[in-house]
Amino acid sequence: MPLSANNPDRISWLHVNKDSDFPIQNIPFGVFLTRDDIITIGTRIGDTAIDLGALHQLGYFEGIPLTDDIFLQDTLNDFIADGRKTWRLVRNRIAEIFDAENSTLKHHTKHKETILFRLDEIEMQLPVQIGDYTDFYASKEHATNVGTMFRGAENALMPNWLHLPVGYHGRSSSIIPSGIPVHRPQGQTMPDGATAPVFGPSKLVDFELEMAFITTDANDIGEPIPIEEAEEYIFGLVLFNDWSARDIQKWEYVPLGPFLGKNFASSMSPWIVTLDALEPFRVESPEQNPKPLSYLQSNGKKSFDINLEASIQPKGAKEATVCKSNFKYMYWNMAQQLAHHTVNGCPVNSGDMMGSGTISGPTEDSYGSMLELSWKGTKSLKMKDGTERKFINDYDTVIMRGYCENDGTRIGFGSVKTQLLPVFNSKKNN
Amino acid sequence: MPLSANNPDRISWLHVNKDSDFPIQNIPFGVFLTRDDIITIGTRIGDTAIDLGALHQLGYFEGIPLTDDIFLQDTLNDFIADGRKTWRLVRNRIAEIFDAENSTLKHHTKHKETILFRLDEIEMQLPVQIGDYTDFYASKEHATNVGTMFRGAENALMPNWLHLPVGYHGRSSSIIPSGIPVHRPQGQTMPDGATAPVFGPSKLVDFELEMAFITTDANDIGEPIPIEEAEEYIFGLVLFNDWSARDIQKWEYVPLGPFLGKNFASSMSPWIVTLDALEPFRVESPEQNPKPLSYLQSNGKKSFDINLEASIQPKGAKEATVCKSNFKYMYWNMAQQLAHHTVNGCPVNSGDMMGSGTISGPTEDSYGSMLELSWKGTKSLKMKDGTERKFINDYDTVIMRGYCENDGTRIGFGSVKTQLLPVFNSKKNN
Repeated sequence: MPLSANNPDRISWLHVNKDSDFPIQNIPFGVFLTRDDIITIGTRIGDTAIDLGALHQLGYFEGIPLTDDIFLQDTLNDFIADGRKTWRLVRNRIAEIFDAENSTLKHHTKHKETILFRLDEIEMQLPVQIGDYTDFYASKEHATNVGTMFRGAENALMPNWLHLPVGYHGRSSSIIPSGIPVHRPQGQTMPDGATAPVFGPSKLVDFELEMAFITTDANDIGEPIPIEEAEEYIFGLVLFNDWSARDIQKWEYVPLGPFLGKNFASSMSPWIVTLDALEPFRVESPEQNPKPLSYLQSNGKKSFDINLEASIQPKGAKEATVCKSNFKYMYWNMAQQLAHHTVNGCPVNSGDMMGSGTISGPTEDSYGSMLELSWKGTKSLKMKDGTERKFINDYDTVIMRGYCENDGTRIGFGSVKTQLLPVFNSKKNN
Repeated sequence: MPLSANNPDRISWLHVNKDSDFPIQNIPFGVFLTRDDIITIGTRIGDTAIDLGALHQLGYFEGIPLTDDIFLQDTLNDFIADGRKTWRLVRNRIAEIFDAENSTLKHHTKHKETILFRLDEIEMQLPVQIGDYTDFYASKEHATNVGTMFRGAENALMPNWLHLPVGYHGRSSSIIPSGIPVHRPQGQTMPDGATAPVFGPSKLVDFELEMAFITTDANDIGEPIPIEEAEEYIFGLVLFNDWSARDIQKWEYVPLGPFLGKNFASSMSPWIVTLDALEPFRVESPEQNPKPLSYLQSNGKKSFDINLEASIQPKGAKEATVCKSNFKYMYWNMAQQLAHHTVNGCPVNSGDMMGSGTISGPTEDSYGSMLELSWKGTKSLKMKDGTERKFINDYDTVIMRGYCENDGTRIGFGSVKTQLLPVFNSKKNN
């Protein structure tokens, strides 16, 4: 199946700004509510949202084996379950429909009225019903930073870390799309020097700069996925802010791992950029020493050069970029993560999500969390309004962006943007 | 809403053996495939399965506000989402329909043919689509045993254990109903004294004797559930075997918790026994010292006296009971678990499942895992065929049962029964 949708020379008859994340070579998938209060599956070119449900009803996907209602759903799960061949046929067709050389839809005013929306006419939804969400801990720089802070440089990495992609299960129910605010969580913490825990608002709310991939139906229970096949089951990626309450996490996490310090919220960017669209941006993964066990060994470029950044916008102020990182820094790539996750026979389904863990780079300005950027609160970051931050304040908005770029083509993820609100007040809110 | 379904004096016109787990006072809910290959929601009295979809279509639930297709579904999620008032109306009505004094259905041969099934005519399914699965670690005896084995008696309980119900997220996709076999998982382990990890079949496959509760839609993101309200959101309970590969778990679990050592499979009993049916079996929880923080304090009997047992049946042999425990031993009760889980605003939905963690009692024969029963493999348990077990062998079947009993009434859960098969062989199985 050729990836004609990736043709870098193609231009669209829809207007696309030069610095847009969404040229006709991207064609991401998302779910949105239209001006008519209908939920549909869609894509985006430039600043135009495209209703794929309407496109399909009007016959533009003729010849592609799709059920009638495949895009008239409130999640992408069924479409993703159709598999890679179908994703490619649909993405290639969309590229053809919106190609500057193709005037069929371009000159059909009535169809355009049904199919095309300005961004301010739609409201992006969570694109998938996430069955299970796993978060890895795959950046060596991040694991080393956190380990150094809590156990010293000598014992920074746990003995297993270089041998397997450490991961843990997260909470699906609290994953929300960009734009939905998050309340500062309350919980139990053990203050330094205290002899008994206390209850109250977390004082150390943090972001984690991550990416996450969405899978299709991959295996039956009991059947491992060989690493060479793993990427076949990855539909696409999103930006992911894995909100963390460091003080709650610190007290609760031994011995079974993080729980309430994480599951109050995780925010994702709403457009899933397909692995296909990222093909031109493959790069080698970091060298692995020691060499992993054979089920984790693979050939070829399995990492992706995706620029990432996080910024903080205090209420009423401009945003300040606090870190710049890159998805390619991950020590354990996605194929390794998926092969490891299923080596025991754990089933992976359409709509499952796997986060990378915080992606920190080698330099101090590339660390992917305030925990690392403020080095456990020992230094402050300057905001544009002159205030300083060690962690996230009430009413701050955290914004993450990601994009790939080579000569001429930019494929981006848009952003995940989330405001932190004060502790939920049931009296005030009821 | 009176709980007339619990009337201990009621007898059914359906035959019920004296030692049955499913008298007319139980009325659990499940999902089954019928002889006509139709999936339906049902209940059970004695050894008769009752198709609730058919009962509803034939008008037996007239007057109860139910959508037409509420029981013609392959999961209980929507029915559970209807809330406690509806569950009670339906359970009370079922009790009336099958009351020995009521001859309407009893004498309607044609209706009975559509509604009633022998157990060998149906195949039990997973009763809910589990959105999120959390496992707690709520038995003090279990946590103390495991802590003593790995850290010594002095440091058995972690500092947080007596202050909060420690829990972690599990994998929903690998939860299977009773009767589905499980393959021995493969994975990475670090043998004692080795300098590098090895890959291969787990050598220490274990069961964990647990119960799990199923929730209804409980809260929106950001909103805690007060402990006094928590039980309103618990639909019912099942027996739960949280399969564990101890050697995989030991190597992987630091610092983010168990992962592949757990997510290859967890088995549940197929009939959900409602919290309402368990009302007569409430007991006080164990005394808590230190007193927990106020969000974890509640009044009244919040624990349940449920006898539990696990047995092992080698291939071709009779089963040997290896432990007898009780749900009432749990230090942290379900209301505390649910209040803790949501205190940070984590949303809980219809069909979510929360496991108790291994339920061990105070005596050596009440420990809920082979890890404890064999005390880390230092002693063996005798099987009926003369062989011995420290952990679970290939082709062994693990059976768990649970029931409550007082003068005259027995409310049981049936069983969860799972055979362990050898490592999955893709050549053999394809």
